[in-house]
Amino acid sequence: MVKVRIAAPVLQENSAAAAENRSLFQELGLFVVNLMSSPGSGKTSILERTLSHLPADLKVGVIEGDIYTTKDAERVAAHGVPVVQINTAGACHLDARMVKAALEDLPLKELDLLLVENVGNLICPAEFDLGEDARVVVLSVTEGADKPLKYPLVFRLAAVALVNKTDLLPYTDCDLDALCRDLRVVNPELTIFPVSARLDTGFAPWVKWLRERVRIKKGRGGGSHEQESAGI
Amino acid sequence: MVKVRIAAPVLQENSAAAAENRSLFQELGLFVVNLMSSPGSGKTSILERTLSHLPADLKVGVIEGDIYTTKDAERVAAHGVPVVQINTAGACHLDARMVKAALEDLPLKELDLLLVENVGNLICPAEFDLGEDARVVVLSVTEGADKPLKYPLVFRLAAVALVNKTDLLPYTDCDLDALCRDLRVVNPELTIFPVSARLDTGFAPWVKWLRERVRIKKGRGGGSHEQESAGI
Repeated sequence: MVKVRIAAPVLQENSAAAAENRSLFQELGLFVVNLMSSPGSGKTSILERTLSHLPADLKVGVIEGDIYTTKDAERVAAHGVPVVQINTAGACHLDARMVKAALEDLPLKELDLLLVENVGNLICPAEFDLGEDARVVVLSVTEGADKPLKYPLVFRLAAVALVNKTDLLPYTDCDLDALCRDLRVVNPELTIFPVSARLDTGFAPWVKWLRERVRIKKGRGGGSHEQESAGI
Repeated sequence: MVKVRIAAPVLQENSAAAAENRSLFQELGLFVVNLMSSPGSGKTSILERTLSHLPADLKVGVIEGDIYTTKDAERVAAHGVPVVQINTAGACHLDARMVKAALEDLPLKELDLLLVENVGNLICPAEFDLGEDARVVVLSVTEGADKPLKYPLVFRLAAVALVNKTDLLPYTDCDLDALCRDLRVVNPELTIFPVSARLDTGFAPWVKWLRERVRIKKGRGGGSHEQESAGI
């Protein structure tokens, strides 16, 4: 079948910008998460819950990717963290150059953790390295248990899957065990955290995972920032 | 912000193939629907319910777009209708050339209605005209009421929105009235049908809408097929 794919030069250019971002994050000892999912899986709600569960002395910045609106950025900004909005003006994913440009508007040296919420799309964002440390994919139980096998790339490249809307499990046909099995078929290394952003349940292990990665990354980072914030 | 967009030559080439498809559909008097949504909104379940509600003498063909698997095509084939699977091998949408190639494997002259299930993606498929008569977008209430304003293009170009999973309304924070209001802000001409594919409710008005369009298109089509099947 004929197909339209992302052109190789676009991906090469992206890789170069991603490498620059990665090098900067390494230098700063800043742990960076690329949060991806379908529209409506609950990325923003999870981000808000995560912010409320993280300790106040862990400094978080957020980049919000959206096609047109600033709705998500407004929700996140209400939590008192620095937020930069990227409006992709129709593009269906974030790329490393967009993120690089957005970094200029964040107080990077003060941050311990940067959460990047990608555009709601289970396909295209997976092809674009942003220079992040970890890709985290959100999947809600209402989307059906067949998604890992139908959209494998995003799950294959993720470190963590947050399985959201577990409060709706009793009212759907989704088999959580089967879903987790299929996630591990696609990616045996995947760490899976079932959560309900609506009920604020299941967040402790995910937040613990995040805090450990932040601590390890800071230990490896260079410069004064590491010493200032040691012990988180 | 820097952005990666679908290149103009790709869209021009697509428009040419879409025009050929449209001309063929016109000649055949065949009504064609392009069914679009996020992953997990319930396109395939809606397609299955629609097939079961249509009268047996209305001949339906299906094209299933999927990135890798044949899961959806197998579900649809179980209903005894001709199905052609397009595996896009990673591409995030169907285009008119893919559909054109798939048409060769369908008994087009025998069909009254062709349902094309696009790849699960609320963004990219909206940019590709397939030559269809109507775009129908599926949105589930569990995705949240903010989707029409966040992903306007797909809703702006649709004739119909099927709002699915209404059985879950009591367990979510989704306000169906607000959702319908926002849908009409984006597209005042949109016809909205709330349905539950799981409970098989709400399908009668949607199926009536489809049957009327099939009847009108057949009346306008050329050739013997129109006379053979008049009166549906």
